[in-house]
Amino acid sequence: TENANDDVENEGSHPKLILTKQGVDNIRKNLGNVPIFDKTLADTKAEVDAEIELGILVPIPKDLSGGYTHERHKKNFIIIQKAGVLFQILNDEKYANYVKDMLFAYAKLYPTLPVHPQTRSYARGKIFWQCLNDSNWLVYSAQAYDCVYDWLSKEERETLEKDLFIPFAKFISEGNPQFFNRVHNHSTWGNVAVGMIALVMDNDELLDNALNGLKTDNLNTGMRDNDGGFIKVEGLRLGFFGNLDEPFSPDGYYNEGPYYQRYAMYPFLIFAEALHNVKPELKIFEYKDGVLLKGVDALLNLSDADGDFFPLNDGQKGMSYYTAALVSAVDIAYKFGGENPELLSIAKKQDRVVLDDTGLAIAIGIKEGLEKPFTKKSVNLSDGKKGDEGGVGILRSDNLELVYKYASHGSSHGHYDKLSFSLHEKGNEVLQDYGLARFVNIEQKGGGNYLKENQTWAKQTIAHNTITVNEESHFEGKFEIGTKHHSDLYFYDDKNPNIQILSAAEVNAYPGTEMLRTLALIKDEDFERPFTIDLFKIKSDSKKQYDLPYYYLGHIMKTNFEFETYDQLNPLGKKNGYQHLWKEASGKPATDNTVFSWKNKDLFYTLTTASNANDELILARIGANDPEYNLRKEPSFIIRRKNTQNTTFASVIESHGSYSSVSELALNAYSSITNLKIVLDTEAYTAVEIITKKNTTKIFIISNKDNSTDKNHIIKIGNKEYNWKGSYYYK
Amino acid sequence: TENANDDVENEGSHPKLILTKQGVDNIRKNLGNVPIFDKTLADTKAEVDAEIELGILVPIPKDLSGGYTHERHKKNFIIIQKAGVLFQILNDEKYANYVKDMLFAYAKLYPTLPVHPQTRSYARGKIFWQCLNDSNWLVYSAQAYDCVYDWLSKEERETLEKDLFIPFAKFISEGNPQFFNRVHNHSTWGNVAVGMIALVMDNDELLDNALNGLKTDNLNTGMRDNDGGFIKVEGLRLGFFGNLDEPFSPDGYYNEGPYYQRYAMYPFLIFAEALHNVKPELKIFEYKDGVLLKGVDALLNLSDADGDFFPLNDGQKGMSYYTAALVSAVDIAYKFGGENPELLSIAKKQDRVVLDDTGLAIAIGIKEGLEKPFTKKSVNLSDGKKGDEGGVGILRSDNLELVYKYASHGSSHGHYDKLSFSLHEKGNEVLQDYGLARFVNIEQKGGGNYLKENQTWAKQTIAHNTITVNEESHFEGKFEIGTKHHSDLYFYDDKNPNIQILSAAEVNAYPGTEMLRTLALIKDEDFERPFTIDLFKIKSDSKKQYDLPYYYLGHIMKTNFEFETYDQLNPLGKKNGYQHLWKEASGKPATDNTVFSWKNKDLFYTLTTASNANDELILARIGANDPEYNLRKEPSFIIRRKNTQNTTFASVIESHGSYSSVSELALNAYSSITNLKIVLDTEAYTAVEIITKKNTTKIFIISNKDNSTDKNHIIKIGNKEYNWKGSYYYK
Ligand SMILES: [Ca+2]
Ligand SMILES: [Ca+2]
Ligand SMILES: [Ca+2]
Ligand SMILES: [Mg+2]
Ligand SMILES: [Mg+2]
Ligand SMILES: [Mg+2]
Ligand SMILES: [Mg+2]
Repeated sequence: TENANDDVENEGSHPKLILTKQGVDNIRKNLGNVPIFDKTLADTKAEVDAEIELGILVPIPKDLSGGYTHERHKKNFIIIQKAGVLFQILNDEKYANYVKDMLFAYAKLYPTLPVHPQTRSYARGKIFWQCLNDSNWLVYSAQAYDCVYDWLSKEERETLEKDLFIPFAKFISEGNPQFFNRVHNHSTWGNVAVGMIALVMDNDELLDNALNGLKTDNLNTGMRDNDGGFIKVEGLRLGFFGNLDEPFSPDGYYNEGPYYQRYAMYPFLIFAEALHNVKPELKIFEYKDGVLLKGVDALLNLSDADGDFFPLNDGQKGMSYYTAALVSAVDIAYKFGGENPELLSIAKKQDRVVLDDTGLAIAIGIKEGLEKPFTKKSVNLSDGKKGDEGGVGILRSDNLELVYKYASHGSSHGHYDKLSFSLHEKGNEVLQDYGLARFVNIEQKGGGNYLKENQTWAKQTIAHNTITVNEESHFEGKFEIGTKHHSDLYFYDDKNPNIQILSAAEVNAYPGTEMLRTLALIKDEDFERPFTIDLFKIKSDSKKQYDLPYYYLGHIMKTNFEFETYDQLNPLGKKNGYQHLWKEASGKPATDNTVFSWKNKDLFYTLTTASNANDELILARIGANDPEYNLRKEPSFIIRRKNTQNTTFASVIESHGSYSSVSELALNAYSSITNLKIVLDTEAYTAVEIITKKNTTKIFIISNKDNSTDKNHIIKIGNKEYNWKGSYYYK
Repeated sequence: TENANDDVENEGSHPKLILTKQGVDNIRKNLGNVPIFDKTLADTKAEVDAEIELGILVPIPKDLSGGYTHERHKKNFIIIQKAGVLFQILNDEKYANYVKDMLFAYAKLYPTLPVHPQTRSYARGKIFWQCLNDSNWLVYSAQAYDCVYDWLSKEERETLEKDLFIPFAKFISEGNPQFFNRVHNHSTWGNVAVGMIALVMDNDELLDNALNGLKTDNLNTGMRDNDGGFIKVEGLRLGFFGNLDEPFSPDGYYNEGPYYQRYAMYPFLIFAEALHNVKPELKIFEYKDGVLLKGVDALLNLSDADGDFFPLNDGQKGMSYYTAALVSAVDIAYKFGGENPELLSIAKKQDRVVLDDTGLAIAIGIKEGLEKPFTKKSVNLSDGKKGDEGGVGILRSDNLELVYKYASHGSSHGHYDKLSFSLHEKGNEVLQDYGLARFVNIEQKGGGNYLKENQTWAKQTIAHNTITVNEESHFEGKFEIGTKHHSDLYFYDDKNPNIQILSAAEVNAYPGTEMLRTLALIKDEDFERPFTIDLFKIKSDSKKQYDLPYYYLGHIMKTNFEFETYDQLNPLGKKNGYQHLWKEASGKPATDNTVFSWKNKDLFYTLTTASNANDELILARIGANDPEYNLRKEPSFIIRRKNTQNTTFASVIESHGSYSSVSELALNAYSSITNLKIVLDTEAYTAVEIITKKNTTKIFIISNKDNSTDKNHIIKIGNKEYNWKGSYYYK
């Protein structure tokens, strides 16, 4: 029978899922002595008490996200999870009663509900407009139920399970295989929701579905979800294990990027903690060589100096490691990952913990002063299940962070941005990645959902700091093609602390055109701060137009070329994102170097690039064909090289000087470069010479065809011979 | 003879100017016991020691500001002033020698110098391109000289005075009467420079010129300076006293606005301190009812929540009370203004003090924990020598600050912005005042000087949140006309803590058109935060076009009207600033209310305005006709009412809700208003009715012709009677 699991063995064993009996004892013993834990407890109590005052509000589902019923139901599951924890820690039945009343209100409502009236989703829920949010509900409510399980009577449990939990779990799994039986962050939530309630109820059938997926689903290959992602792909492992296997690379990089990894991290880790507690024999934290804990480390490394995640793919800017999902991720990684003291410094900044064993452990660690700074170094994170589908590299040097994306497509949230990069200094964007075209949960802006400009602008190649060929996006902007390919690492080298370098190739984005881009952050005594070298080499089977934009943020200070601004503005093109750029100005190079400098916040930046005489230099601004003002009207500097077959773009981006609007002093406001020149460019080698204001000469050489670290190279440029080992040379 | 002043009485009396013998004793006794003073001393020592290492660098003058020679000479005078102080406090001859060597290098160079080679200024200096900077040099160098005066030999002093100080003082005064004999912040520096060195040398003739101006100057009325300001105005008192009398109102408001007041504050106060020390009989701090100390208070009140000065007139944004001039202003005001403990909290934020008696006093106050918060309340500052030339009001309520400008023109730095306002929340701009078109001291941008767009854009009426009639600026954009007029206060009332209100009239900007604008910040329980009411009543002799822009900052969320965006952008007009606005979109009101909402940082804002059916609603963006990218490309919402004689614009601006990109929660994202209506608009009264989402009705009535506080009004609107005393009613 459905309640066969409610046996004597299961009764009396709760809480066991996240809180444990022993953990609760331990917490109670420490109360009042662990500041961050105590503070979080007090905040949580205040929050829950205020909601208890309001009473039980379980409205008939009606709205999309941002609307009342959506937000109310969301609040409910968040609060009962907390109330359950408070009942355990404070032993005050007020909280147990609140959980019970809430769950019974849902048990009464749920059997009466049809699918949600809003029809936008490919997998409509009952409480919410999409099964994803119903799954969120169950992940939290399962924890609440676990906390009051033993306190409830057998009859009460039977009612809740029969009327609510079991049909709820079945609806989001068997009832929606297109949602549940898939490799996708949505499905992870579904799997975990079913798994969590299965562990509480000790229901093996549901647990098996959660871990391994449904045995049968009757889904057709080729079905798509709302974001255009494929629903069924043959041969994939499914369920929680499948969602661990597929999207995570061996380095812990999640193929949709950090914004979605952050979202997925909570179900992954909370379920891992539950499995660790209830099914320790699965050794879940050791699964796939410890990929869950590596994922936390990767995610923290995918944030800038002040903790904001780099907005790769469909990432909304401003999401950071201060989000609740990362509080639990950090706490869990600390407790189950060997108590790495660097995590304490992140937890201290977060200034709150999870109210369980993991949060207690980390709060005690902070109290005992064990923390060490979390030092972010350069890191190269492979993408792909086996780590062989490109990756994302973050080069770091002093206050600069360069994010280089040469990954696979990134599932349905991927952008057509092969070999693109963004540059950050002290947590501020210098050369931005636009991010997504969406205002998450802001109802006025398209219901808080993806806006059409996400497709027409944000995903397009021209929206990124990489090359667009012939005004067409990579892979013709087609998901079916893009998702089959990835860029490839050529080499990554962070061994020399003064030269952090990554080179990667892309040969599929434009059939017949091969691209090799090398980006390095170089520290050199003749420059005030580390500079970026950007070498973009293209080999093509015919003549093309190449557009290389730099989405600088800030105010233009000076250019060394003349440009014409227009009396009338027109869009730069008609499609593939070009229709969203106003062409503000255009010019020609004044010399064989083009110098473009700007100020962003209080720092100066200069881009120096080797120009061809026929290059067109375009100043553009985002915002054309934007009838609802969905886009940010930000600027771009675009280098356009027409009617060219093989070519190399060679540039240096310097960060220099400063301006204070309080002292009104401008320091080192000019570039340190007097000339930059490609002095050699063959199939085998490319070399760039930089002459500085101190009249010193720097040379950077890359071996284009041989990336082995122990190969000796000897070449002559002019009458000077260079001799080195490995894939690049700089001096 | 020229050195007659170097008598026995004068020798042995130094330092006496800013530092005094007794002050130095006192400082030495307290060393090591007053944290902020000790810290400032250590910082200063480190800074000066580093410069001493570099040696004496006195290059031949050549560059404009931002260039090497300019910045080097500027550094020199700043450092020798500090070195002089260090010599006195630390009694280490290394510092005296440095001052001496530097002064002798100048004494050698100065007699050889022609006027500065750069010809841009109406009053070229010798060390710098303008006398203004030469005066800066002397203000600081006089202090350095004072510190080493007694330590130098008589012969050394004679050389310095004969070759350097006396000719220097004469050049910037007699040699440049167009600079020196004038009421202007430049002249204040000139007067003070001459006055400071006169006090050190005990030279009565120079002191008299400094205090009262040159007796003869041979200047013609009608001469203009580089900014277009008049040089000679008949009948003005000149010299330091003249510069105290004329530009300061009795409330301490300085007619050019806070950015220039900040710049002038240093010479005003440092010279006042010197006069207080050397000529106590002048009772300078009591002059004009204590205007100097009132000026400090006014200036602090002209800053936003985080200390940034409101950018009235030619103010550069970001200048704040953290600037060095305000450190000395606050220290001096504390010591000579009755040790107001609220100033301690500002000094504590500044975290540094002046190294003299005043800085010691304030540092001791902080050490003793005497500080009280500097609470900024609403304030109405009159403008004009006698306080009868309009003014600037700052309305404050919770985190909101509304700056309402109804002042006189503001001298050569004034803008054509009668009855304009800006709105700030938590130190952020919500409805901005553009400020100036200049990048002060950034050489790449027009040498760091005023850009031509300052005239063509920043000063124009359409660049401000006020009404432009027939696309012409106030006073035809002519300084000669504008400078003759000022707006007039109608009433100001801050007595009701829930209603802070200011109403002012302008009848000269457009002859034949009378304007009365009333702005209020109202706290009402039916609104989440205080809202702004904006009533702009116009009476004209004929039909006109009225444009009322709101320079919102942030991203548009939603409008209740349809608008058309364009495939091609054109400027909004041809002149008077309109040529700098792109017309991005245009629409018509959908109903008798127009609702426009936006998000700025993490808060939502909504403007609700009563519309006429024929209004045009324009979305514009700054940046057209900007060939050098000198302007910030920021947006505007413009209400255009054509072909209208008398009319009233009635609007409410709400601040509401919040959005967090970490929690992704949008709270209270919509306006609380369902309808806003002008229910009465006669010569005598204007009444606005606001209906809220809670279905409550608010009414605001203003008496347009009688502003007396004790007048009883009884009027009937519809069938309801209103009965109140004073100039306005709100309930
Ligand atoms: Ca970023
Ligand atoms: Ca401000
Ligand atoms: Ca202004
Ligand atoms: Mg992107
Ligand atoms: Mg950041
Ligand atoms: Mg501010
Ligand atoms: Mg202005």
